[in-house]
Order: sequence, then C-alpha cells, then structure tokens
Amino acid sequence: MEILIPFDNREPKTRLSPVLNRDERQQFADAMLSDVLSAIKETNHTPHLLVTTPTDRSEKVTVDDRSLTAAVNKFLSTTKLPVAILMSDLPLCTPAVIERLFSYETPITIAPGLGGGTNALVIRDRSFSVDYHGYSYRDHCQHAASNSLAVSECDSRRLATDVDEPTDLREVVLHSDGAAATWLRTNGFSLNIEQKSGRVSVKRDENNNRE
Amino acid sequence: MEILIPFDNREPKTRLSPVLNRDERQQFADAMLSDVLSAIKETNHTPHLLVTTPTDRSEKVTVDDRSLTAAVNKFLSTTKLPVAILMSDLPLCTPAVIERLFSYETPITIAPGLGGGTNALVIRDRSFSVDYHGYSYRDHCQHAASNSLAVSECDSRRLATDVDEPTDLREVVLHSDGAAATWLRTNGFSLNIEQKSGRVSVKRDENNNRE
Repeated sequence: MEILIPFDNREPKTRLSPVLNRDERQQFADAMLSDVLSAIKETNHTPHLLVTTPTDRSEKVTVDDRSLTAAVNKFLSTTKLPVAILMSDLPLCTPAVIERLFSYETPITIAPGLGGGTNALVIRDRSFSVDYHGYSYRDHCQHAASNSLAVSECDSRRLATDVDEPTDLREVVLHSDGAAATWLRTNGFSLNIEQKSGRVSVKRDENNNRE
Repeated sequence: MEILIPFDNREPKTRLSPVLNRDERQQFADAMLSDVLSAIKETNHTPHLLVTTPTDRSEKVTVDDRSLTAAVNKFLSTTKLPVAILMSDLPLCTPAVIERLFSYETPITIAPGLGGGTNALVIRDRSFSVDYHGYSYRDHCQHAASNSLAVSECDSRRLATDVDEPTDLREVVLHSDGAAATWLRTNGFSLNIEQKSGRVSVKRDENNNRE
C-alpha cells in the first residue's frame, strides 16, 4: 500500500526553536523523516513524500506548498485507495507498528497523537477527507461517523509520540537508536534525571549550544 | 490471571497539587483506579489491590506501607506466576489493551510509560524483580537481559498515558468518558484550544477553583 508522508521541508518544527536553531531544526526534521522511511522500507509498503518545496530524496515525491489539509485532500482525490497518511515526525515508528496500522479492516483507521492530533490514518473509503489541526482526532472520528464509516483506533505509543516541542525530545533519547536519536546525541543532548523525583528530561551539553 | 494494582491511597498524586487540593487529588486518584478496575472487570482477569493504608474497596487487598518497589517485590516472592502489575493511574485503559498485554509469550512483557516509566508488567519467570523509578523501563529491560529473559514491549498509548502532572489531564478529557474524565468535567475542567496553534490544554472554570 502507498503511504503518504507530508513533510514541510521549508520551515519545519518551529516549536522546537527554543532549543534548536533553523539549520538544526531542518537537520533534525530530516533525521526523523529518515527514521520513518527506514521503518517503511522494512515493510511491503511504498513511501510517497508530500513536500512543500522540491527535495532530492529518492522516494516518489509530490510538491504542494498549500496547507497540509488542502494538499492531502488534493492527493486523496486522485490516488488509488486504500492509502495511508503517516506523519514525518514519528521517530519511534517501527515496521511492526506500521504493519499493525494496516491490520484493521474498517473503512478508517486512526492512530491518535498525544494532544489529540491525527498521526496516522488508513483510508479505504473515498467519502473521507482530512482536516488537520491540533485536536483533529475527534473531528476525524466525527467526520467518519457522519459518513457512516466505522473507525478503528490503532493504540500505539510509538505512533502517538510526535515530536513537536522540547519536552518531546526525551522520548526520542529514551526509546530510539535511529537517525533522530543519533542526531540529538551527536549534538550534545542527553538524559537528565532529577535525583529527587526520578523524572526524566533532556539537557544539552554547553559545548553544543545552538548559539 | 491476577493483576496487582499498586495504589497509594494515603498521599496520592502529589505532582497534581498545582491544580488539585489534597481532597481532590484523592477523589481523582480514586476515579482513575475505578477506571482501571472497570476495564479489568470486562476481562477474565482478577484485580488485587496493593494499598498503603486499609481501604473499603471490595476487591482482594494487600496492605503494605513500604516503598512501591519493596512492596511489589514482597508480593512477587509469594504469589503464583504469571502475574501482571498494572499502575492505577491509567484512566485510558481498556479491556482490549489489557487482553493485548497478556498476548505476548516472552517471560517478561512491559508497557512503557511516557517519560520512561514502567506502567504495566507481565511476569512469567521468578528470577525477575522490579525496581520502580522515573525511567525504570530501561532498567527493567537490562535486568531481564542480565537474567537471559526475553522481553516484549506492549506498544500502547493507552497504557503509556499515566496521569502524574497537570499537562497529563488533557489526555483524559480528550480520550475518555470514564470515572476520571467525569470527575474532571464535574469539577470544572474542560479543553482549552489555542486559536493560533491549535494546541490543546485543559482549563478550569473559575467557579470550580480549588481554593
């Protein structure tokens, strides 16, 4: 099955600007995309990048600089179904969870993200369209219900963990050895464990400051 | 199978004190426990509460006021295996994900929590013991490896979402209609959607202030 991966390669991951400068955000976003593509390559599915500006990646590419929602709905209106849409900022993604995402037979499968977003979708019915925003999971469920389409939830921590904000980085360092985790480690990020509470965050080595 | 549910009923959820007073934290922790017990009751498994002070709950109860690690290891040393240990602060827990937790055949199954904790365990080998702390998932994996015990990861957003801090409350309001979500709604909590970013948090109605 084809897996569409929307990727804003013009101005990615602006909410990480408190800890990463513009070049670093682009490198890190690129590393997360590489993790997603690596996981897909170990399955029988085919990645298709939906980017905002041309890229020299070797995968099949569509360029569309409109909003995420408009670009995905345009793609859906012309592509063969079923199709999956997987976010590019899921560095904990594995081949196993991608296979699980496809294991449901309902017209719609959704893997919700933390915070209520929609991190992965499998669409088997042409009456469905997307509307991406912060808490889109609920709205996608309601949109499916209003079209009498059954929805399965793919219950996955790995697909739920999209990396948008500095606090999300700890999950990458904790649970991955992939490209994004390697990029973070190479650039001075490591786990910081509060002695009293045992809580985990990430800190950056002063010699690897973004300034 | 028996499912041990450790529950600190003396001073629960202190990290929620910025938004809930002591009585409220006890009520809310109790509601989360009720959600976990409700999910278990729809399976064939049997809950067993491990509490810090006596309780009038009708389930099988063991009282042990030592640390979580000491109390669980004492329980493990005397109980029949296999056994599961499930945290009480998982209000998104469903019968389906509890069944999935038991579907792995390895000696150890772990459902990691966000932030690196261990939210659920299935133990089928007596050489394993627990050591709970903030980032215990890694250490439990290493402990299993040093005893030549294979580990399965139960990849679940619902089991990963333990509610410790104010920011965790949004997941409950977003994704549940259970006792904990009802308690939050009844006590004035609702979703707050930032117009610009679309980000979701929870806010509390001023008429339901904790003061």
